Amino acid sequence: MTDPFQRLSLNTITTKNWTLPDALDGAARAGIPAVGLWRDRVAEAGVETAAKIVRDAGLRVSSLCRGGFLTAADDDGIARAVADNRAALEEAATLGTDALIMVVGGLPDGSRDLPGARARVADRLADLVPHALDCGVRLVLEPLHPMFAADRAVLSTLDQALDLAAPHPADAVGVVIDTFHVFWDPGLAEAVARAGREGRIASYQVCDFNLPIAADALLSRGLMGDGVIDFATITAMVDAAGYSGDVEVEIFNAEVWATPGPEVLTRLKTRFAELVAPHLTR
Amino acid sequence: MTDPFQRLSLNTITTKNWTLPDALDGAARAGIPAVGLWRDRVAEAGVETAAKIVRDAGLRVSSLCRGGFLTAADDDGIARAVADNRAALEEAATLGTDALIMVVGGLPDGSRDLPGARARVADRLADLVPHALDCGVRLVLEPLHPMFAADRAVLSTLDQALDLAAPHPADAVGVVIDTFHVFWDPGLAEAVARAGREGRIASYQVCDFNLPIAADALLSRGLMGDGVIDFATITAMVDAAGYSGDVEVEIFNAEVWATPGPEVLTRLKTRFAELVAPHLTR
Repeated sequence: MTDPFQRLSLNTITTKNWTLPDALDGAARAGIPAVGLWRDRVAEAGVETAAKIVRDAGLRVSSLCRGGFLTAADDDGIARAVADNRAALEEAATLGTDALIMVVGGLPDGSRDLPGARARVADRLADLVPHALDCGVRLVLEPLHPMFAADRAVLSTLDQALDLAAPHPADAVGVVIDTFHVFWDPGLAEAVARAGREGRIASYQVCDFNLPIAADALLSRGLMGDGVIDFATITAMVDAAGYSGDVEVEIFNAEVWATPGPEVLTRLKTRFAELVAPHLTR
Repeated sequence: MTDPFQRLSLNTITTKNWTLPDALDGAARAGIPAVGLWRDRVAEAGVETAAKIVRDAGLRVSSLCRGGFLTAADDDGIARAVADNRAALEEAATLGTDALIMVVGGLPDGSRDLPGARARVADRLADLVPHALDCGVRLVLEPLHPMFAADRAVLSTLDQALDLAAPHPADAVGVVIDTFHVFWDPGLAEAVARAGREGRIASYQVCDFNLPIAADALLSRGLMGDGVIDFATITAMVDAAGYSGDVEVEIFNAEVWATPGPEVLTRLKTRFAELVAPHLTR
């Protein structure tokens, strides 16, 4: 069994106000061995430079956030989405991660056609798979909480993500299990087991669901222990499904963002030790 | 085929500021033939009096809102839930409706155990079924949007409601399809068809999902046409599944509540005519 702390990754949105060098330095000082990166902060530094400073810091990149936004119905929108995701796959490869997290996108303006948007996601995924294989990077589908079904991701459940992945090789298309987005699902245990059997679990992201829901619902993502999620049960499911990769802490939260980064990392490690690490056996 | 307007029902939360007599008078003046009532407004009038003024107004009661809140884990909480729901079944019978809408309840304070809470809902349902049959009133399970899974209803999908109903006779336990709560579900078409085959559809409630989500998420319920829901497709599903009962308009929305009742009813009828009625064939 690996020391669970060797599987801890800081998704850098958690320390949103830090630049990439700040975040890498902060993670390294806190003894966190991996980071999940965001494309905007990588672009600020430049991809090649980012890759070098990650290596110099002795860190791993657990994932790149994010590709996706595949639901455009017009030719220009489709072409832009494909080009942008091809670039993101290349950035992920340069950064040394095999996971590009995909938020698939919501309904185009004025549309109410969820099945149509889902069909376009499937089409774009097929367009992107060959380049993903060439890059050695997986397209990692992220089911988002159903409150975002219309405006952010028409992909709402883990089973739906697995169905979408099914036509493609497991090394081209995977799924991420993000506790905030899936904890409510009455079919979660079966879906996680299925994801394991099908070799699709590419990432595990932990984050609580805080109540009441924040005015900007996405900012209801809380530090583990601050909300309603049972991390013991979900972590044990993911563990039993065979996942042995990095565990990213990914928090969007105004209060966390207003807290100095080093303090956030201290709290995060404490909560990870209490609530998540005891349930990791691999 | 019935005139679709003969199937229109005003759920009286839509005109929240009206007392029961106000709402009955308003519905009758607007030519709306049915009402979905709330227990608090019924209690203000007294159940027997309420039943009489409904009859005198020449209206039907399409449902009573609401029973449920079945997730208590302590003996006192369980006894209170059973007693309250038995009373609600009797009130529904007195009011002449066979549908008691059930919002099953969220996690008890401090609990994070969704499967445990769901198991208690199943247990309480079994406790209540004999009295439902005696009263001639169905316990109508309402799956709520997953954003309420922790604090309001651990029942989140139509399939989950049908699984919960399955051990019981269809005339004791039904389901309500509320567009706001289920529109996001990638399995909706199959679940609605299943609900029809299993004889479980006891109510159809229409209401839009407005974006951005309101600060109090429940108040994101909007007038049909104001949000992201495809009423044509969902109404056609419910129709194809054989449902021929009342269609309740049930809106929780600060702006709607601030609008004079008669104006709300005028708008509601217009939107119903445009977006829902054309897809009702029974």
